[in-house]
Amino acid sequence: MRNVNAILLLSCADSKGLVAKVSDFIFRHDGNIVHADQYTSKADKLFFMRVEWELKGFALQREEIFSAFAPLAEQCKMKWDLHFTDYVPRVAVFVSKHLHCLHDLLLRRHMGELGAEIEAVISNHEDARDLVEQFGLKYFYFPVTQKNKKQQEDSELALLEELKIDFIVLARYMQVLSGEFLKYYPGRIINIHHSFLPAFAGSNPYQQAYDRGVKIIGATAHYVTEQLDEGPIIAQDVIKISHRDAVGDIQRKSRDLERIVLARALRLHLENKILVHGSKTVVFE
Amino acid sequence: MRNVNAILLLSCADSKGLVAKVSDFIFRHDGNIVHADQYTSKADKLFFMRVEWELKGFALQREEIFSAFAPLAEQCKMKWDLHFTDYVPRVAVFVSKHLHCLHDLLLRRHMGELGAEIEAVISNHEDARDLVEQFGLKYFYFPVTQKNKKQQEDSELALLEELKIDFIVLARYMQVLSGEFLKYYPGRIINIHHSFLPAFAGSNPYQQAYDRGVKIIGATAHYVTEQLDEGPIIAQDVIKISHRDAVGDIQRKSRDLERIVLARALRLHLENKILVHGSKTVVFE
Amino acid sequence: MRNVNAILLLSCADSKGLVAKVSDFIFRHDGNIVHADQYTSKADKLFFMRVEWELKGFALQREEIFSAFAPLAEQCKMKWDLHFTDYVPRVAVFVSKHLHCLHDLLLRRHMGELGAEIEAVISNHEDARDLVEQFGLKYFYFPVTQKNKKQQEDSELALLEELKIDFIVLARYMQVLSGEFLKYYPGRIINIHHSFLPAFAGSNPYQQAYDRGVKIIGATAHYVTEQLDEGPIIAQDVIKISHRDAVGDIQRKSRDLERIVLARALRLHLENKILVHGSKTVVFE
Amino acid sequence: MRNVNAILLLSCADSKGLVAKVSDFIFRHDGNIVHADQYTSKADKLFFMRVEWELKGFALQREEIFSAFAPLAEQCKMKWDLHFTDYVPRVAVFVSKHLHCLHDLLLRRHMGELGAEIEAVISNHEDARDLVEQFGLKYFYFPVTQKNKKQQEDSELALLEELKIDFIVLARYMQVLSGEFLKYYPGRIINIHHSFLPAFAGSNPYQQAYDRGVKIIGATAHYVTEQLDEGPIIAQDVIKISHRDAVGDIQRKSRDLERIVLARALRLHLENKILVHGSKTVVFE
Repeated sequence: MRNVNAILLLSCADSKGLVAKVSDFIFRHDGNIVHADQYTSKADKLFFMRVEWELKGFALQREEIFSAFAPLAEQCKMKWDLHFTDYVPRVAVFVSKHLHCLHDLLLRRHMGELGAEIEAVISNHEDARDLVEQFGLKYFYFPVTQKNKKQQEDSELALLEELKIDFIVLARYMQVLSGEFLKYYPGRIINIHHSFLPAFAGSNPYQQAYDRGVKIIGATAHYVTEQLDEGPIIAQDVIKISHRDAVGDIQRKSRDLERIVLARALRLHLENKILVHGSKTVVFE
Repeated sequence: MRNVNAILLLSCADSKGLVAKVSDFIFRHDGNIVHADQYTSKADKLFFMRVEWELKGFALQREEIFSAFAPLAEQCKMKWDLHFTDYVPRVAVFVSKHLHCLHDLLLRRHMGELGAEIEAVISNHEDARDLVEQFGLKYFYFPVTQKNKKQQEDSELALLEELKIDFIVLARYMQVLSGEFLKYYPGRIINIHHSFLPAFAGSNPYQQAYDRGVKIIGATAHYVTEQLDEGPIIAQDVIKISHRDAVGDIQRKSRDLERIVLARALRLHLENKILVHGSKTVVFE
Repeated sequence: MRNVNAILLLSCADSKGLVAKVSDFIFRHDGNIVHADQYTSKADKLFFMRVEWELKGFALQREEIFSAFAPLAEQCKMKWDLHFTDYVPRVAVFVSKHLHCLHDLLLRRHMGELGAEIEAVISNHEDARDLVEQFGLKYFYFPVTQKNKKQQEDSELALLEELKIDFIVLARYMQVLSGEFLKYYPGRIINIHHSFLPAFAGSNPYQQAYDRGVKIIGATAHYVTEQLDEGPIIAQDVIKISHRDAVGDIQRKSRDLERIVLARALRLHLENKILVHGSKTVVFE
Repeated sequence: MRNVNAILLLSCADSKGLVAKVSDFIFRHDGNIVHADQYTSKADKLFFMRVEWELKGFALQREEIFSAFAPLAEQCKMKWDLHFTDYVPRVAVFVSKHLHCLHDLLLRRHMGELGAEIEAVISNHEDARDLVEQFGLKYFYFPVTQKNKKQQEDSELALLEELKIDFIVLARYMQVLSGEFLKYYPGRIINIHHSFLPAFAGSNPYQQAYDRGVKIIGATAHYVTEQLDEGPIIAQDVIKISHRDAVGDIQRKSRDLERIVLARALRLHLENKILVHGSKTVVFE
């Protein structure tokens, strides 16, 4: 149990004493807080907290923590989650024909910095198979047509369940997932959009950026919701362009952005640093 | 005539020999080119060039250059302008109640880095009068209502003509100028918009950015056209925000951005480094 | 007492229960925490905390808080400070001949965003007098020579004491303050250095940057210590340059950076968001 | 010969008519210039130019261009190079144990955006062998000790010559190449340094950055010269850090920077956009 930490992510209506109550719970059981971050949204009178403490020396076994904390959570009507830093989330990556984000994830995994295991790469094309298998990972091909979409999604869901997938990354997956599908992974699907949302939502943002003559382009990682390109934003970044950049140059420059922004968002999620707050996120960096 | 340079800004249909012909024109008259920049838009088959050379040692008097270059310009059907670096453009600044951009321009002028003279500050409010007069500049108050707008614009135009204004800066001016007004200063009015256009066009972009939960905000300087917030973009920049930033914080952070972006755009314009290309700009930085 | 908050800034050896004890102190007296931030430096086993709560509804009068908290502080051997958000710090700005940072501070004050009052502008030159007096502020001229330095510093210290100055900003002040002088304002003098420290420490960093051919320049705001340019860094920022930028261009670009970075550092200090940690800072943004 | 361009990179003492003479040379032979960029260093009175034109329709065969241009080059005492855009440079990548930059290059090659062929990966360790061979590339292991260094460098040089290597990338290669070695590839070796040079030159810049408490870290790509970490800088970029970032976090954040900066520098070099100017670079972006 050396070096393993517990993380509480919680939100509730704001009231006096919340920091005291939560930190006291940990202190009473001999826990040592290593990170604590708190945010109060005045507009909504909501309280958000992330607290991380060492299990080493903590008086409760990890399986006892949930029930020990539940009464306080109930009293304050918290929405809350409990995580442990030694759990390795099981991730599925969805991809189509643009492979730079997938590449990037494969290399981060190879360097040991991903913080998750890629249990499956799922695609509506065969383009990525060789690369994925070369890294010793499993590749699943689900070609999607208008006709078979429902059926393919059902098959995908079955596979995801079988593989006990915790989390889905859409690494430039060019199919829209149905609302039905999304219900199974609420707040557990991240997409990378290749523009600085809300600018250039929809298709072909590179061309849109070129046509409008912007001097900066961006990329946006967000949780997926039924409203396309409108899910809670996790991370964004930008890069300068000029009149000299044709659509192909914009695309090339954007690829680096997309890789970095997706990786950053994924890291924040996997380190349990994000709380969703309506259509927005609270990110405890 | 020491240290004065001439600048040619030109565009025309692309064809072979354009760089050679223009640089030969300068060489034949003993000119020394200090900057030359060229861009060919393949999509439109258009050629853009900016060339700057020293008048010192140049065989033509500055008043002879125009007519000497005209035949070549005509032959190639160029759109072109000729500028001299010792001319100090006469600028009018329009402002309403948010004074940070005006402030910034006043200080750059005071530091001698503006590259223009502010001949008038024009406002639909009295808020900026004291500050402007404190710096020894002229302030003109034109309150605008739905009823008197046409009449006030006519008075403003008369004033601008009387003051021989070359160029107008909308430094957070909260009135929309009529198409009629704009015709008198085509490509000679710069606006600073307090968002990363095309995101959050229209009113209250700070609130829009807050509501959408973006992680980065921006500012955009552009030439003013009849299509509000759609004129050719000159410069943009961005700054990071987080969930902790309330609308007031976004506003404060944006103020610094707006100052910097407006100043950068103005400098590029005043140094004759911009060519307008349809709804876009070619910026020779 | 509406809308006034109390802020505790504290550091001590790390031990279990520190967050709980501090937040419990506030909760016991009916305080509502609006911000709490905590950081544990594992390397040094040090604990740092900033906690802000509303005085409205708090059971202690503001003058009682200090003595009520002192026992806990003593028990944990804390270094600590208590601040109130309605206190307007009294600032002295030192300046020489480069006035852009002073300008910027004057304008932020004029816009009401400074969060402090400028009680004196002190200079070893007369260059800034007109500007300062134009804004209705007091200007003090202390020409410094090798011979009179000690004596002038004594006079400055007497003036600062008379004016009850809390904090000093060196806004491009070109004199080195003596160790003697610094002792009177430990951790209460901010300097803006016109390079990305530790690169180009010492004199004429613009020229140094030009000579080295770097592609990015920076500015650094730091607390002043006896080791010149080695004090704890508060804020830094950078801007791109190219081979086209002569020393004068680097200087002009840097000016905007210096203004922004100094303003950011000053804001962080005035909002009591900084704890000094040896030669480094903990900044709770 | 469709779509192939010729590129001239040249520098010489500044004099009148250089742009005219070069562009006239191209025009006289029916060439269509697609890019022309020029820079005059006033301090040194040196002229730098990059001009790119289409071979399609050009009156000279590509093998005739060199001798046709030589007289003008001689007359103006130019240093010059001629390149063609369809030549694929042959690159050797040197690497030790940190593989993120190598990874990145492998993926850019796999995506077809590298603009060069990686003919060899050379290392003083075996760590990268599997990865490199997995991508079907050749891996050469040259363990270096103090004793065998001269001999190993000789073997490396022989290999490089045999493979007709044009250009070397030090992708976090932890050995210092001898002056002897460097003579064989003057201006043809790029290194990525994991700091914002000249800050934190030498070893372990991550630790140095941590110890100094900077708020921004950087990476620098430069040509390698005998003076370690002092070669002409090609590209730099930075990322923000905070007190929360331990050395490991700085390392992780820096890795992304290093990948991007090295890739950018390599692209600029491979597109023949760089002229070395003493200890600095002229980069025609």
